[in-house]
Amino acid sequence: MASAQSGSDEHKARILETAQRARQAGLLLAKSSNSARSSALNALSERLSAAEHKDALLAANKKDTDAAVENKLSSALANRLDLSAKLDGVLKGVRDIADGPDPLGKRSLHKELADGLTLQRVTTPIGVLCIIFESRPDAALQIGSLCIKSGNAVLLKGGKEAAASNAAIVDAFRASLESQGLPADAVQLVSSREDVSALLAMDEYIDLVIPRGSKSLVRHIQANTRIPVLGHADGICSIYLHDDACTLPSDDVNALLIDAKTQYAAACNAMETILLHPTTVRDGTWAAAAAALAAKGVTMLCDADSLAAASAAGVAAAPPSVDGSTTRPAGGVEAAPVDAYDTEYLGWTVAVKVVPGGVEEAVAHINEHGSGHTDCILTQNADAAEGFKAGVASASAFVNASTRFADGQRYGFGAELGISTGRIHARGPVGLEGMVTYKYLLDSKGAMGVPALSWVGQFSGDSARAYTHVDKEA
Amino acid sequence: MASAQSGSDEHKARILETAQRARQAGLLLAKSSNSARSSALNALSERLSAAEHKDALLAANKKDTDAAVENKLSSALANRLDLSAKLDGVLKGVRDIADGPDPLGKRSLHKELADGLTLQRVTTPIGVLCIIFESRPDAALQIGSLCIKSGNAVLLKGGKEAAASNAAIVDAFRASLESQGLPADAVQLVSSREDVSALLAMDEYIDLVIPRGSKSLVRHIQANTRIPVLGHADGICSIYLHDDACTLPSDDVNALLIDAKTQYAAACNAMETILLHPTTVRDGTWAAAAAALAAKGVTMLCDADSLAAASAAGVAAAPPSVDGSTTRPAGGVEAAPVDAYDTEYLGWTVAVKVVPGGVEEAVAHINEHGSGHTDCILTQNADAAEGFKAGVASASAFVNASTRFADGQRYGFGAELGISTGRIHARGPVGLEGMVTYKYLLDSKGAMGVPALSWVGQFSGDSARAYTHVDKEA
Repeated sequence: MASAQSGSDEHKARILETAQRARQAGLLLAKSSNSARSSALNALSERLSAAEHKDALLAANKKDTDAAVENKLSSALANRLDLSAKLDGVLKGVRDIADGPDPLGKRSLHKELADGLTLQRVTTPIGVLCIIFESRPDAALQIGSLCIKSGNAVLLKGGKEAAASNAAIVDAFRASLESQGLPADAVQLVSSREDVSALLAMDEYIDLVIPRGSKSLVRHIQANTRIPVLGHADGICSIYLHDDACTLPSDDVNALLIDAKTQYAAACNAMETILLHPTTVRDGTWAAAAAALAAKGVTMLCDADSLAAASAAGVAAAPPSVDGSTTRPAGGVEAAPVDAYDTEYLGWTVAVKVVPGGVEEAVAHINEHGSGHTDCILTQNADAAEGFKAGVASASAFVNASTRFADGQRYGFGAELGISTGRIHARGPVGLEGMVTYKYLLDSKGAMGVPALSWVGQFSGDSARAYTHVDKEA
Repeated sequence: MASAQSGSDEHKARILETAQRARQAGLLLAKSSNSARSSALNALSERLSAAEHKDALLAANKKDTDAAVENKLSSALANRLDLSAKLDGVLKGVRDIADGPDPLGKRSLHKELADGLTLQRVTTPIGVLCIIFESRPDAALQIGSLCIKSGNAVLLKGGKEAAASNAAIVDAFRASLESQGLPADAVQLVSSREDVSALLAMDEYIDLVIPRGSKSLVRHIQANTRIPVLGHADGICSIYLHDDACTLPSDDVNALLIDAKTQYAAACNAMETILLHPTTVRDGTWAAAAAALAAKGVTMLCDADSLAAASAAGVAAAPPSVDGSTTRPAGGVEAAPVDAYDTEYLGWTVAVKVVPGGVEEAVAHINEHGSGHTDCILTQNADAAEGFKAGVASASAFVNASTRFADGQRYGFGAELGISTGRIHARGPVGLEGMVTYKYLLDSKGAMGVPALSWVGQFSGDSARAYTHVDKEA
């Protein structure tokens, strides 16, 4: 017992030191220049493009992929682990981040409070981020680069399947930071769940936790820390077909629904629910869409009215799954279970429901059952579109566009750290712009730029100074 | 036992219903017009200016002040409770909020993603706020008005000493909301600590908790909820005198220090620490400041060097306090205890320390011992000023200005909800602008404004559509 206790104390002390070193590194990075941060990222790209270090990284990566094969991990996972074909593209992404605009020091307020007293609000790094990410070692390169560019220190916890690759990548980050006079401790690797558990208690040193991964991981972290958490547990995205959907080209409606469901079904921005105005059931719009989705292989879990309409139009019942697989051998319709509208399927399944109350009921359904991620209305009716956009409380509300557009690259933000469904700080796709906070700077200057002191007592009594509150040029 | 359990279940069910009604009201408020929200606030001001309701409110308020006298509360508290002299001014503040610009629907991004596909980012309400505030009923009027103007539903928990006043104020809010077709449940009163405890567990319905009050209250709330908390536990603000401080007018330096410490010593933006470059100890700048502060009645808790210099210059030792009072009968210096630099005095006491390492050590001291609120450097040296502003990680960093300027009114933000020392979401003085989040709106339109559907599959393969990512006019 005594030795276990002392082991645990030692572990805690080690993690505390890691967190403290991250805090110190973050403070240094916060006052570094954009050119130093960008140079460090370009140095990283050069380093990992040079034969010596590239070979070492790929050798480490081969360890991981060999172990994946040995441990009989799925071929999909083994593919995700494999850096060899992806490395050049990922390093291009690192250079793009390096060469992009500085997210720090951007002024969002510039105001004269009084003669000689000037207030500015400028972007600054958040401080120290703890990011838990999936088993793709290329994610370590992208996340680490976003953190350095935005002046944040980061504690990276990757999947254990990528341990050797991540260690090599973090070593490269640290060497590149040092080569530009920046603190190596701005990028540190933490390796175990115990490390993460200990870090979650260190709200003095860690400003934001970003879990990328399964909803159980996200929920576990949300439930076990006082540190703010940015991310999303679920992506339950809906598309509502308004009563005039029949006036939209039918092939395009079906193509959009197929895109939203199947283009990348495991993505958080894939459609999980179709909401139907009763008119679309009566006028055949829904039956045509159901037939198209079934032909593509999609399983539709339908309420009574949508099931009856699809069946009457000849859409087959979905065949049962084989061998417990989550995918069915062919598409089709079947009755929705009770929790159909509260489930993220992450596969080729979608829940379907008729909303007799139109836009208002669709909005109410989405605000109750959705996850605040991305929702869409299909309509040509401008009032319906405006009502939908105003009513849906999600991070993204779309008109006539696939939910799959909710993505940092597609929004033009460049590399994306993740997608947040929270309502505090950054929402939706989060890139560099969401990785900063701001501070206020107040400068007191006398006439001709000579310093003169200001205190609030000067603003009352006889011959008081006066607040002007005049906006200055941005 | 069974009945206590059932009482607790009933309580929980009641609070759950309160939270759910707040959520529904928030969703309605989110799509309301600025004119409806402003009209509700003007209706509130009219209502409480009309004899009938004004008399009723002041009668309720008299109950509270009478009870305060009966319960022998301090006269300072009884004064804070008394609305009679303040009401007209507070209602003027309500009308100012009503007539100010709409914080919602402000566009911060406008971009063409591709031909016909347009992304906007616009401000929206956060949703449901739970605000715990001090025993000033005028705060209920101000906070409720800020919430309605920003489209947020609010659960208000005021001090129990102001229970009757707060109930009358919330009734007036609800009637005013209903008079403009807005949901009364956008403003609800919760009355007990048990209510707040239950609400802190309802992260599905409450988006942000804002505790205004003692540091023990703030810390208790931070430790007992997964809901994001905005506010500050401590305000440990420092002023650093750089080596050239002797070139600033000595009277002004002393006036600024006295202002920062004594103009309102219980405020979170009052100075708690003076940091001294060794030069200011040698050249007499410090001794002159110490004499001025002592003459004003300030107790200075000094490290060895600053104590020796002040004593040598004839500054008296601080007399011991009488009858356990926190204020001393006269100002003076004494040796700093070990925790001197980690304490918020909230009174006429300040800690003093010499930092031989200059700006760098001052910044390091502030980042370690400060609370991230507001810190200031006194200097004419531009490099020192820039180094200080870049290095200090606090929400506000000042040059030659009293820390007391860190305030929503003085910053020109109008009424202030509170001051945040956090690094996520809003920081520093938080007014309407900090009470909103944003959402992304994506509209797909064909040629001539005719709707046309967009899906991501169109952007790959033969004759693919292309992303343009062109900024449109703000």
